[in-house]
Amino acid sequence: MSTPPSALFSAAAPRPVPLPAPAGADAERASRLLERCRALVRPALSDAVGRLHPWVGEMAAYSLGWCEPGGAPVTVPASGKGLRQALAVLGAKAAGAPASAGVTAAVAVELVHTFSLLHDDIMDGDQTRRGRPTAWKAYGTGPAVLAGDALFALSVETLAAVPGTDIPAAVRQLSTALGDLVRGQADDLLFETRPWTGSGAVRPDEYRVMAEHKTGALLGCAAALGAVLARAPRGTTATLDRAGRHLGVAFQVIDDLLGIWGDPMVTGKPVHADLLRGKKTYPVLAALGTRAARPLARLLDSPRTLDEAGARRAAALIEEAGGRSAALAEAHRHVAAVDACLDGLIEASRTGGHPAPVAASRATDDLRALLAFLVRREV
Amino acid sequence: MSTPPSALFSAAAPRPVPLPAPAGADAERASRLLERCRALVRPALSDAVGRLHPWVGEMAAYSLGWCEPGGAPVTVPASGKGLRQALAVLGAKAAGAPASAGVTAAVAVELVHTFSLLHDDIMDGDQTRRGRPTAWKAYGTGPAVLAGDALFALSVETLAAVPGTDIPAAVRQLSTALGDLVRGQADDLLFETRPWTGSGAVRPDEYRVMAEHKTGALLGCAAALGAVLARAPRGTTATLDRAGRHLGVAFQVIDDLLGIWGDPMVTGKPVHADLLRGKKTYPVLAALGTRAARPLARLLDSPRTLDEAGARRAAALIEEAGGRSAALAEAHRHVAAVDACLDGLIEASRTGGHPAPVAASRATDDLRALLAFLVRREV
Repeated sequence: MSTPPSALFSAAAPRPVPLPAPAGADAERASRLLERCRALVRPALSDAVGRLHPWVGEMAAYSLGWCEPGGAPVTVPASGKGLRQALAVLGAKAAGAPASAGVTAAVAVELVHTFSLLHDDIMDGDQTRRGRPTAWKAYGTGPAVLAGDALFALSVETLAAVPGTDIPAAVRQLSTALGDLVRGQADDLLFETRPWTGSGAVRPDEYRVMAEHKTGALLGCAAALGAVLARAPRGTTATLDRAGRHLGVAFQVIDDLLGIWGDPMVTGKPVHADLLRGKKTYPVLAALGTRAARPLARLLDSPRTLDEAGARRAAALIEEAGGRSAALAEAHRHVAAVDACLDGLIEASRTGGHPAPVAASRATDDLRALLAFLVRREV
Repeated sequence: MSTPPSALFSAAAPRPVPLPAPAGADAERASRLLERCRALVRPALSDAVGRLHPWVGEMAAYSLGWCEPGGAPVTVPASGKGLRQALAVLGAKAAGAPASAGVTAAVAVELVHTFSLLHDDIMDGDQTRRGRPTAWKAYGTGPAVLAGDALFALSVETLAAVPGTDIPAAVRQLSTALGDLVRGQADDLLFETRPWTGSGAVRPDEYRVMAEHKTGALLGCAAALGAVLARAPRGTTATLDRAGRHLGVAFQVIDDLLGIWGDPMVTGKPVHADLLRGKKTYPVLAALGTRAARPLARLLDSPRTLDEAGARRAAALIEEAGGRSAALAEAHRHVAAVDACLDGLIEASRTGGHPAPVAASRATDDLRALLAFLVRREV
């Protein structure tokens, strides 16, 4: 589900801190790039899913947006943008390899991403995704757990089968991301049980770690894994990993902003859903850290569950206390950090001669176009 | 939960086909062996679990039988026998390496085993295991899904971190077993929805494949992985893998026999639970393939759910149609196949000089003692 660049600023914002707007050409470049990567990766991804037990394979194909329950092809497209597979392909190109060198990494991370959506939807009790019932709603909880496990195993199997590459480094890259993914999801679940104020309250730095793990780890792994399989030097893969992790935090914060001030007609999410659920989002945590936050703290600490009017009032108080601008500034910082990582890649390729300067520069331009396009959209 | 050697034959069996009875010395040897392996592996296993997110780590420790919900140490031991870790250690020894060379493999397979119990209990809706609430009953379904995922990721991470070994081969061994595990669980779940008779009925050969995947794949992986990390030649690891797979089928069939004719006071399972649930067990499938099975087929095909009297009658009809002796013969065949694999290992070590004949012979003696001890027990 995509959010046009205007969504983040659709409500009247008194102190907008705009993120870099993508030029029309950049947006078009990013769109074409995503489409090209999906087309490049699809045959290998289909092959991998085709190796699953047929029933499990159908659930996987449903989760990937390829079919309806029962296996009939979809009539309305329901796939994701394929951001992670694009990052894997660009990671390989940033290492001076052809796009095709990133395909196995792309398949591995796309399988892990699909696994994590499947299991997260069970944990969060989410009933719809991309406008369709989630897999556990369509097939039952047990089968959805199984399908997630199958995708997880398939991802490792796919990576371990690549001939002639540094498999240990690739498996380590993936398993570290998997571990972080679980850590981030655990923290996210636990945050919901913690208080808004007092010594047990969630601090913004804890949020940052959670977001890096939950969203950033796999984005970083995607780009780095593409480079690992293209035999990039350790410095290149580490920089790409770091870039993806910053991108993940930026995404998560932007998601939080959209959850409070985004246009529900555009984001596709009910208005104030995060506030009504008591979710520990960055704008609220940032606002609670200021002196102006007393009335907000009283409202959130009240034993009464927030209703729609309460959520509206909370949104206004968060903004008054500076939570909105602090969150925008936080997203900005992480976007700038991604940019710095990409500058570092270019610099390394100029001085170290590896990866090839021209290829690296073209790939980082693509990554920048993707970044500009994506930070204005929903994750 | 263990079943003494007598349990399988506690009900009067008209045509007993006894499995090889372990000599007292063998049983003692196997018991001591299991205990020694658990003690050898425990520090590394504790270290690995200690690297998890604390909340997830507690769920893992609970599932391993180390603590109560909340983290307090157990007062009543609730751990498993540790068969898989023992197989990993013996796999390393069969390859001529010291027991310590099998520890990482033992940790990896024990983590995968615990993951699969966690998720299988959710899928099967089982509420107790080893006399305690299952993890999903104690912590909730979402957290139990997450804990399983964490153990899965930790297993791969543990394996990918071993220095100086053939990591690609090790990861391939593990991921193949993981894929098979999922395939077996998928078939087991689907079997419950298939009819007893007619063209959609489950055939004994389909059962064999399911059991090999669901139970045998990880047993085979355990023994083979120990040998892979000890740098055994390909033939040795393949033979150990095959031995474990046969052992798995034997186990599953014996489990089915105990589910119908075992003493519930000894097995710890309610009498006739499998029959009442309509589970497609080997004795029933074998019986339905005979001419004498008409009355049994009529009883099972009846739209009425079996009650206790019906289950008793079904058990008698299965026995009359030869299902009990066919299942015992099937278990026998797989136990004999394990034995043949072990003979092959000895032979290969004599002719090829690798692994060292004495070490291999001692390890296979241990494996044989374990086998004799285990086929008379519950999985």
